[in-house]
Amino acid sequence: MIEVIRHGYIHELRMARPPVNALNDDLLGALIEAIEAAPAHGARGLILSGGEKVFSGGMDVPYLLTLDRAGLKACWSRFFGAGRALARSPIPVVAAIAGHNPAGGCVLALCCDYRIMARGPFRIGLNETQVGLAVPDAIQFLLRRVVGPHRAERLVVAGAMVESEQALQYGMVDELTDAGEVVTRAVRWLEELLALPSGPMLATRALARADVIAALEGFAEPELEWFISGWDSPDTQAALKILMARLKK
Amino acid sequence: MIEVIRHGYIHELRMARPPVNALNDDLLGALIEAIEAAPAHGARGLILSGGEKVFSGGMDVPYLLTLDRAGLKACWSRFFGAGRALARSPIPVVAAIAGHNPAGGCVLALCCDYRIMARGPFRIGLNETQVGLAVPDAIQFLLRRVVGPHRAERLVVAGAMVESEQALQYGMVDELTDAGEVVTRAVRWLEELLALPSGPMLATRALARADVIAALEGFAEPELEWFISGWDSPDTQAALKILMARLKK
Amino acid sequence: MIEVIRHGYIHELRMARPPVNALNDDLLGALIEAIEAAPAHGARGLILSGGEKVFSGGMDVPYLLTLDRAGLKACWSRFFGAGRALARSPIPVVAAIAGHNPAGGCVLALCCDYRIMARGPFRIGLNETQVGLAVPDAIQFLLRRVVGPHRAERLVVAGAMVESEQALQYGMVDELTDAGEVVTRAVRWLEELLALPSGPMLATRALARADVIAALEGFAEPELEWFISGWDSPDTQAALKILMARLKK
Repeated sequence: MIEVIRHGYIHELRMARPPVNALNDDLLGALIEAIEAAPAHGARGLILSGGEKVFSGGMDVPYLLTLDRAGLKACWSRFFGAGRALARSPIPVVAAIAGHNPAGGCVLALCCDYRIMARGPFRIGLNETQVGLAVPDAIQFLLRRVVGPHRAERLVVAGAMVESEQALQYGMVDELTDAGEVVTRAVRWLEELLALPSGPMLATRALARADVIAALEGFAEPELEWFISGWDSPDTQAALKILMARLKK
Repeated sequence: MIEVIRHGYIHELRMARPPVNALNDDLLGALIEAIEAAPAHGARGLILSGGEKVFSGGMDVPYLLTLDRAGLKACWSRFFGAGRALARSPIPVVAAIAGHNPAGGCVLALCCDYRIMARGPFRIGLNETQVGLAVPDAIQFLLRRVVGPHRAERLVVAGAMVESEQALQYGMVDELTDAGEVVTRAVRWLEELLALPSGPMLATRALARADVIAALEGFAEPELEWFISGWDSPDTQAALKILMARLKK
Repeated sequence: MIEVIRHGYIHELRMARPPVNALNDDLLGALIEAIEAAPAHGARGLILSGGEKVFSGGMDVPYLLTLDRAGLKACWSRFFGAGRALARSPIPVVAAIAGHNPAGGCVLALCCDYRIMARGPFRIGLNETQVGLAVPDAIQFLLRRVVGPHRAERLVVAGAMVESEQALQYGMVDELTDAGEVVTRAVRWLEELLALPSGPMLATRALARADVIAALEGFAEPELEWFISGWDSPDTQAALKILMARLKK
């Protein structure tokens, strides 16, 4: 479910679960494995890419609704594990976002070092509250870190999706390029970074990103329990049913 | 001193102490009571509004100068209590700012979820140092949270007031509208927010705003003592006398 | 090595070690002494200025390469001591930056209250990773505080230098003026600040800047050891040799 495409010492991990890279146990497990295995396979930089129209549609809600409580918890745990794997990566990771990127897909992108998004009518954001899910503090932290605490509060409470130009202005993504060029640009950006003296660059990076890792590691068993406990609430179930009806169209 | 105006399930709390809503014990006490009583009266969202030319002129300095030390301390304590009541509100609060909003009035607005201000030559800011008062860290925190630490430092040390356009650009307020429309816009904004699945939205909001509550709760007895202890200093007394002379004109 | 130029109660401390104010033990020691002595000599505000084309070229690398381990550690310790002296200054300090300002010179400027830089093709930034040095967290903190955590990460990991217009837009400097006017503007800015009621302004400033002092005080023996331990690494030595060759041209 993850295609590994080598651009020299830069490895692209392309999520490949059509049609929209909905995140389920298999995809998330494969992603974690690929991230963790990459350095040993010679990668010095990583690119996380997705589909042409949709980077990732976020969690696979129809699949989640088939799971019992233990399965649900395991799948969400794996999702946060994928975020941690990206954040902990000892080598830089760029998200190359060629299309829409809501909810869980946006979270994965926010765990990366850098985000390149397609110019055009593509939207990105943490729209969880719109579909009936609360947003844990660890995820809010990721958004706060790029747009500041007040704007993050407004975006995340409203469940707002924004177009790529707006996302760039807010700092949710770092640069825009043509949809067909996001991976090429990611390769260039990494090549430039990796041309620096390696030890000092990586040591500086580790200090700069320690807060991201700490925030994601702060999402442990009690936070997961809290998160899962909302799943059966009438608000959440009603919103998920509306979402399901829309997905079927 | 607080008029409660119902816009359906959105309750507007209008400060009504002419001419400029100077904050004294009575007004602050009534405000705290109204905020805390609102949810039980059916409110799902709150609007804090003030006068047409002046949202609130800040603390009632002539009144403060009539108080003994214990009275002074009680009144400032009530002021911080009003800030905490706004921050702790279990339902969203919008500040609808139709005019100028210096010092204490600005603090109350900064405790709200969202700020809508009148377009035009109206000014807002923490001008305390200009009138001889130091700004406690809890209040500096509120400004830092919306404009970042360095800009907050520059604004608060200088006691700067800025016009609404500048305030919008800095992030001190969230949007501008015509002076006569601030409440209408606040109602619309809340209606949109309150249309979201309620539980997930409120749980997300509680996490997003936990730092605001924590900062205001960090202003306890020692901080209040510190703050009050500056009151009799020659600098403060001289600056307050200049302010008094100006207010009498 | 430090010329003290009095503009009334505002004292300018001008680094004067031609050609580029390379920071060595003597210059750093003189700077610390001048900062600490200024209030007793009647200063109510300080200006840190440097050369006409270069504020400071940063640490004196050729000098550092002549030192043994103990000397290296002492010199870097003095550098961080100069940063702490600026941050702890009980009176406001403005950096008046008339030219380029890389690495160590940029760090000193970031320890000041306010930065005025020359308009034009002058560059500023923490380019340490470019020359083979890791950037300690205390220094990263200084950049984060003015540009936010994500932009700081990008700039510092890349070792980016930016032109003054860009630096202004990012918040690395506070205003631009003609190269010949940076000190004059710094005097004006301080005069305005010092016209405020002194006690409340300074008390507010102390709270606003407590995080800067805390961050620099957090750089203690273990952090210094960590920093020095990278000095002999092949990456660092190779990058420093390239730098030396360039300096000799």
